[in-house]
Amino acid sequence: MQRCSDKWPTKALKRHEYFPYRDMKMKDYSLEPIGFIRSKIKKRKDAPSFYTEGAPNAVLEVKSKYTEGLSQMKVGDEIIIITWLHRAYRDVLKVHPRGDTTRPLTGVFLTRSPDRPNPLGLHRAKILAINANNVSIGPIEAIDGTPVVDIKPVVEHSNDF
Amino acid sequence: MQRCSDKWPTKALKRHEYFPYRDMKMKDYSLEPIGFIRSKIKKRKDAPSFYTEGAPNAVLEVKSKYTEGLSQMKVGDEIIIITWLHRAYRDVLKVHPRGDTTRPLTGVFLTRSPDRPNPLGLHRAKILAINANNVSIGPIEAIDGTPVVDIKPVVEHSNDF
Repeated sequence: MQRCSDKWPTKALKRHEYFPYRDMKMKDYSLEPIGFIRSKIKKRKDAPSFYTEGAPNAVLEVKSKYTEGLSQMKVGDEIIIITWLHRAYRDVLKVHPRGDTTRPLTGVFLTRSPDRPNPLGLHRAKILAINANNVSIGPIEAIDGTPVVDIKPVVEHSNDF
Repeated sequence: MQRCSDKWPTKALKRHEYFPYRDMKMKDYSLEPIGFIRSKIKKRKDAPSFYTEGAPNAVLEVKSKYTEGLSQMKVGDEIIIITWLHRAYRDVLKVHPRGDTTRPLTGVFLTRSPDRPNPLGLHRAKILAINANNVSIGPIEAIDGTPVVDIKPVVEHSNDF
């Protein structure tokens, strides 16, 4: 389906058009991976804490049903990748940042710890090559097999993300 | 549960310790809101496209079971909020950016359109006040009632997100 606007439609719509997912259990907050990371990092203990700390390049293998969503992507683009950190603990609410026990226990929402109630990872990377549904990106600290749930552009005029 | 590290534990663990969620359907990719946005923006059509475009301040009401995750949060901190865009269409793969039909149809992964396979929103905001589980933040373009699924710190040394 294509829509001509990324804004909510302003013309009057029937109620079932406003809530197309009402019957699809939108309340379930259920994600579907759009692809997976293929990396030489195989284990969580080998992953750097952040992409600026020696992370390698990797391949983002996008499922063929979603490749249309990559339309207009160019080599050199900066993107933000949202991953599902499949090896994380979801019952953790406080950690010592970076495992440094001299730092006070800190709420996970103030850290980039993978252990958190909803194990979403945020990664900024550059597009290095595009071959159909295989997108070379880097650097990225995600481990091999990490599910990818979304890709967004870096919005340059905001000077941050 | 508290852990002393945000790194994968290096000591040998039994298999069931490595995969604590194996029996909790980790493969389900299911999110649970940690809170909700309370905003004066009530409808999607009234929301600006980006927080830099006149978005108001709002309150992030964190569920009491997750308030421990806010420990050490301070007024003035910059955070990234990941939301579940509950009014989005999930079957859209291409849009005209910003609804401008003079711009070519573009893959949603190259836009910030709320319409996308996994309707996750990314918002940068500043902490304005903290009253127990009610965190005043802003500016933010999310509409009233938007579920929040994660909060992360802006990592200053990365100069982006």
